Amino acid sequence: MKLFTVGPVACYPEVLEEIGRQMYSHRSREYLDLHYETVDLLKRFLETESQIFLFSSTGTGFMEASIRNCVRRSLLCCINGSFGKRFADVAVANGRVVERLEPPLGEPVLPDMLEDALARHPEVEAVALTHNETSAGLINPLRELASAAKAHGKLVFVDAVSSMGGTEIKVDEWGIDVCFSSSQKCFGVPPGLAVGSVSEEALKLSEAAVDKGWYFDFKLWERYQKRGRGTPVTSVIPQIAGLNRILRLIEERGGKEWYFNLYRRRNLKIRRGVERLGLSIFPRKGYESPTVSCVNAPEGVEGALIYERMRGKGFELAMGYGDLKETTFRIGNMGHIEERDIDLMLEALGEVLAAL
Amino acid sequence: MKLFTVGPVACYPEVLEEIGRQMYSHRSREYLDLHYETVDLLKRFLETESQIFLFSSTGTGFMEASIRNCVRRSLLCCINGSFGKRFADVAVANGRVVERLEPPLGEPVLPDMLEDALARHPEVEAVALTHNETSAGLINPLRELASAAKAHGKLVFVDAVSSMGGTEIKVDEWGIDVCFSSSQKCFGVPPGLAVGSVSEEALKLSEAAVDKGWYFDFKLWERYQKRGRGTPVTSVIPQIAGLNRILRLIEERGGKEWYFNLYRRRNLKIRRGVERLGLSIFPRKGYESPTVSCVNAPEGVEGALIYERMRGKGFELAMGYGDLKETTFRIGNMGHIEERDIDLMLEALGEVLAAL
Repeated sequence: MKLFTVGPVACYPEVLEEIGRQMYSHRSREYLDLHYETVDLLKRFLETESQIFLFSSTGTGFMEASIRNCVRRSLLCCINGSFGKRFADVAVANGRVVERLEPPLGEPVLPDMLEDALARHPEVEAVALTHNETSAGLINPLRELASAAKAHGKLVFVDAVSSMGGTEIKVDEWGIDVCFSSSQKCFGVPPGLAVGSVSEEALKLSEAAVDKGWYFDFKLWERYQKRGRGTPVTSVIPQIAGLNRILRLIEERGGKEWYFNLYRRRNLKIRRGVERLGLSIFPRKGYESPTVSCVNAPEGVEGALIYERMRGKGFELAMGYGDLKETTFRIGNMGHIEERDIDLMLEALGEVLAAL
Repeated sequence: MKLFTVGPVACYPEVLEEIGRQMYSHRSREYLDLHYETVDLLKRFLETESQIFLFSSTGTGFMEASIRNCVRRSLLCCINGSFGKRFADVAVANGRVVERLEPPLGEPVLPDMLEDALARHPEVEAVALTHNETSAGLINPLRELASAAKAHGKLVFVDAVSSMGGTEIKVDEWGIDVCFSSSQKCFGVPPGLAVGSVSEEALKLSEAAVDKGWYFDFKLWERYQKRGRGTPVTSVIPQIAGLNRILRLIEERGGKEWYFNLYRRRNLKIRRGVERLGLSIFPRKGYESPTVSCVNAPEGVEGALIYERMRGKGFELAMGYGDLKETTFRIGNMGHIEERDIDLMLEALGEVLAAL
């Protein structure tokens, strides 16, 4: 099966080589070398001096951590689809008050909308943004949104699960307090590892937080990190080794711009191919995700049918998700994808559409 | 390096073969087949009708979950060392009141001690037990302790991180409400996956729990599991595939008794070998762990020195941990260990001791 999933995505052969290696202790020198090298690679990648934590969880764990450690009462959640909703759900499940900024499906959050929302809710402590909404295949203008939130003195949390590694994020310059992602998206590594940056301000708030729990306590993670001990719980060693490998590969092959361009080219090729087949892309023009194309299924056809028929031809795309489950299907361009497989996938999609 | 660690341990070659495979979506049929087969294998292994969850976290995540979902105010923590302490720390970090039953280091928790403690603290809702305390190399009489706790109508939480898979646990017959472990111990799988059973009573308490958070919400996990959707967050697919493989291997080779005997033989061989070299085992006789031998370093020698010297000879043991850091070192017998490597390890240990 050729994968054009939205995560877990197909892993690079070099990554799989690392993943299958024999284990060793997370308290050994071998692991600690790997750990701190990976942290440094991520710091360079995200252009930040923030602490970088390697959580033994998925990205949603880091989402929960941002709330438990840093929000006392309320936050503003910007919602473009299912994963923006998840941020709000997680906050509510943790007893926080959630204000919602929710443009119509397919529309981005724009800085003036955020300004309005903050004027209406000046009491919120933080703004939660989904950089790239995987369910709608939409990317928000993160730099401008973070800047607007910071101008109001708010903490900025960024779910970068399907954008980190796929498009630029400059954590310090853009003023992001917590920016997290998962291993199984743009980095092309198996799932199980979340990575994220945590600013000094966020750490200060964590210090004073009550009832923040143990597993995702930022201050605990900072203590282990700073003392040269890595992680307070057992590290997800195979996935960290895989991430380390891909980050080194990216540096060797020309740096992150090279990697972003690779994804951009694949993404454009898929979008143009889909449009040539007479289909349209769901989100508003200009805000299409560079990592996941959310495609409108033809009138009267369920997205799931196209997904199923494509499986029959050996291609695993992704079904629509959440409110878009029936009317769309999705094509990811993250991870290990060969150029020629994009052509074959589009050819197969043409056949599937013709047969409907 | 030959591993005699206490986790992550060396993985079986068959497991590493699974770990290095190409990824696929956690929403695909392939994953769901793997998921439910693994759940069934664990149900048989633990002899339980409880829900079995496959958490994208380490065992400590399941520990935190047991508290957040099921304890409103207070619990009794039975502490034989660092991991018993961790259970108490996690409960305190979550704002719960902790009563402590803490025998002197090296001594087990016995049923009459538990009876006494429960008589003194009749208000506690749950009893937290460490089955096998990794830091002290000590195993507690779990069956009798669970039975005593149940007789008082208490919930029973069991940290079985370094015992599940290494010695018998009958979840339903023994009356355990939450019983969890990690992939990187007795199952010989890389870290990143926690598995655990959750009883009907524990699920009922979760339903009424406030502020339990999202990531470790038992009811959310139950909903996904029961609806045939696997897990609410992305599953740690490689580790689950590895666990599936080893559980099937165990069934093929004669069932869990065969596996427990294998560990028992290795463990006895190590203990006898160590004693022949003139060293003694730390915990009280009769309560030595079947998976981790905690060895007293010779008078005046730091355990860490023996650990370092053994590394020099190609054997990775484990350092002492917590309060026993300086005076002990540890030899694990979990995961992929060849019989003849035990002989070589003991030979090397003899040389190290002779050279001191």
